[in-house]
Amino acid sequence: MALIVQKYGGTSVGSIERIQNVANRVIDTYNQGKDVVVVVSAMGKSTDHLIQMANDISDNPSKRELDMLVSTGEQVSMSLLAMALQQKGYQSVSLTGWQAGIKTEAAHGNARILDINNKRINGHLAEGNIVIVAGFQGLTDEEEIATLGRGGSDTTAVALAASLKAEKCEIYTDVTGVYTTDPRVVGGARKLESISYDEMLEMANLGAGVLHPRSVEFAKNYNVKLEVRSSIEKETGTMIEEEVSMEGNLTVRGIAFESNVTKVTVHGLQDDINTLAKLFTILSDQKINVDIIIQNTNGKEATDISFSLDSEVLNQALEVLSEYQPELNYDHITYEGDLAKVSIVGSGMISNPGVAAKMFNVLSSNGIKIKMVSTSEIKVSTIVSSTTMISAVECLHEAFELEERKTVEV
Amino acid sequence: MALIVQKYGGTSVGSIERIQNVANRVIDTYNQGKDVVVVVSAMGKSTDHLIQMANDISDNPSKRELDMLVSTGEQVSMSLLAMALQQKGYQSVSLTGWQAGIKTEAAHGNARILDINNKRINGHLAEGNIVIVAGFQGLTDEEEIATLGRGGSDTTAVALAASLKAEKCEIYTDVTGVYTTDPRVVGGARKLESISYDEMLEMANLGAGVLHPRSVEFAKNYNVKLEVRSSIEKETGTMIEEEVSMEGNLTVRGIAFESNVTKVTVHGLQDDINTLAKLFTILSDQKINVDIIIQNTNGKEATDISFSLDSEVLNQALEVLSEYQPELNYDHITYEGDLAKVSIVGSGMISNPGVAAKMFNVLSSNGIKIKMVSTSEIKVSTIVSSTTMISAVECLHEAFELEERKTVEV
Repeated sequence: MALIVQKYGGTSVGSIERIQNVANRVIDTYNQGKDVVVVVSAMGKSTDHLIQMANDISDNPSKRELDMLVSTGEQVSMSLLAMALQQKGYQSVSLTGWQAGIKTEAAHGNARILDINNKRINGHLAEGNIVIVAGFQGLTDEEEIATLGRGGSDTTAVALAASLKAEKCEIYTDVTGVYTTDPRVVGGARKLESISYDEMLEMANLGAGVLHPRSVEFAKNYNVKLEVRSSIEKETGTMIEEEVSMEGNLTVRGIAFESNVTKVTVHGLQDDINTLAKLFTILSDQKINVDIIIQNTNGKEATDISFSLDSEVLNQALEVLSEYQPELNYDHITYEGDLAKVSIVGSGMISNPGVAAKMFNVLSSNGIKIKMVSTSEIKVSTIVSSTTMISAVECLHEAFELEERKTVEV
Repeated sequence: MALIVQKYGGTSVGSIERIQNVANRVIDTYNQGKDVVVVVSAMGKSTDHLIQMANDISDNPSKRELDMLVSTGEQVSMSLLAMALQQKGYQSVSLTGWQAGIKTEAAHGNARILDINNKRINGHLAEGNIVIVAGFQGLTDEEEIATLGRGGSDTTAVALAASLKAEKCEIYTDVTGVYTTDPRVVGGARKLESISYDEMLEMANLGAGVLHPRSVEFAKNYNVKLEVRSSIEKETGTMIEEEVSMEGNLTVRGIAFESNVTKVTVHGLQDDINTLAKLFTILSDQKINVDIIIQNTNGKEATDISFSLDSEVLNQALEVLSEYQPELNYDHITYEGDLAKVSIVGSGMISNPGVAAKMFNVLSSNGIKIKMVSTSEIKVSTIVSSTTMISAVECLHEAFELEERKTVEV
């Protein structure tokens, strides 16, 4: 029988009423003759509440015990959803990560799924059950509970869909799909019918925030069809799949943006062959993620390297760089905060070399100064001043003709 | 190394501060050179909160899913306690019931422990860890989570103490020990140094409420030394063990009592050989617990049978009896509510035949009318009017010389 995996996030199961609503959505699918496996997150703010208790009790709670603690959140919501389905007359059984056969690596708080033994899930499905699985968690070889980190429930759903050879993996969320840009910011933002895995990855990484990048990568690797849709509205969502339907032959499919960016420049570094490697190894060893990196060699012995990062980790980065000054042997450091990143994303760019130039022209003709640039096959990112971020998004959205086509709609 | 099992109930771990306090108690024992295994209940009212959510979502939540839901409560408190111990510089690891190797029968909500595979616990102890185990839960052969029902955490602690051959199992609670009677009711109630398993069983069953009868039975069967003591006060508690030290050669060790008792009489039953069996099978099939049973045969063909039960199940009992009237073929039913049970308990009674007579004399000379009597080797129970319950307890407590011996204390 065709199988659908559905994933409902914390907001979707945030109250008894919402769990009832989810139960109805699940039943609709089941009554269409599908087998259904449902992955749930913890209710609303319950994970935050658990972490708060841990922080109240310890300056630095161990990751192993944190996993023990927070993994209870999904166990609560899954059992409540199973009860709601049973109350409505449907057979249902809930399973923790370990009961569902989800094997992970031994990395507490940020484990990757290694394998799924789906024997037990298939057994419950064969008996006519709707199977509910706790998202975000699995079991290590040492029989330790490990959680998957941010976006973990999305990854659980995609991994289950791959393992169970599901027809589709539906990700239910509080938005109705993936938009050309954030509809809360740009009035004309339009919902996309479909988007490729790579485009979604670029959108997700750039802050579209609907799906976690890890789950999209996973879906791409196992060719799992994803649909992002609303847990409240009934309308069709956005399909994420390899073959994207021609949608007006859009070169640029969306505009992503994020604020809270700081640009750091390390001046006067020795221009050795391993300077870049040394600098970014030091930062990554301290778990400091940098985003755009620019190196400007000028033929002299010294070089300047600039990079952007989340403003929240600026102080940490400055401390680390100061500590390693003797080793890196740089001259001095400058930084500029209150920046934002604005990017255009679309797989059509590969065959359209003028896209980046058009983007720069649009921004400059609107008086927006570009401070850094980074390009890939399907994305061009610019760093601009925070104060110009929204007008940058708006003028790009218009220039690349992404608005709601109102004449067609009426 | 000598091993101590300690059990802390829901009140003892009801807040972050109380968990810190428990951590200090555990560390005191560890620093005395003991291995320590700690069993915890869920925090304060958290189990009630989970059950409330289940009842909000379903008229009749399945026991399997309820076990999934409520077993999270202990998982939260155990991980927080492990974090508190780590924060204070002690190695600790928390284990769920299934991780601790606790195997139960397949009876959701009321499972018995079948076996404990203590390999994993012993491994963690050998590494120098204080091991925290979730009370109240285990795993069935089908890899289903099952809870042990009321008093389950006490039973977990005793079973672990038996399996690990612990020196002692300490039950930490909100009272300082087992008293001759309820100290909230009788001012002179005195804490007992020790009490036998059987005496404790009679005290527990009669409403002393400190330890669950199942855990006492378990301790008796495996000869586990139990100590009931306060999680707040440092004073020594009450030992429950086979060999009770001579404590002033007390014949009666305690006075137990409970209110909310109703006496039901079924009049004019056929006096067949199977009448009693038929009547109480019908009631027990409906899970109606009866306590004292009196049959008065008068040599005629018809007989009257009286029994006492908790007033809360009276209506249910009357309905069942009415439904089965044709089968039981009785004449009519009467009942009397607002009654109480007052009992004297003590293993010394076996060799002191006058104890029951003394009890009846004490009550009658204080104007208290006895409505039913039931006796065993170590207990005599009487049913009296609720309004006379406290004065009955007080005069018996005095007559059997159970008061605080103030002259000795000063």
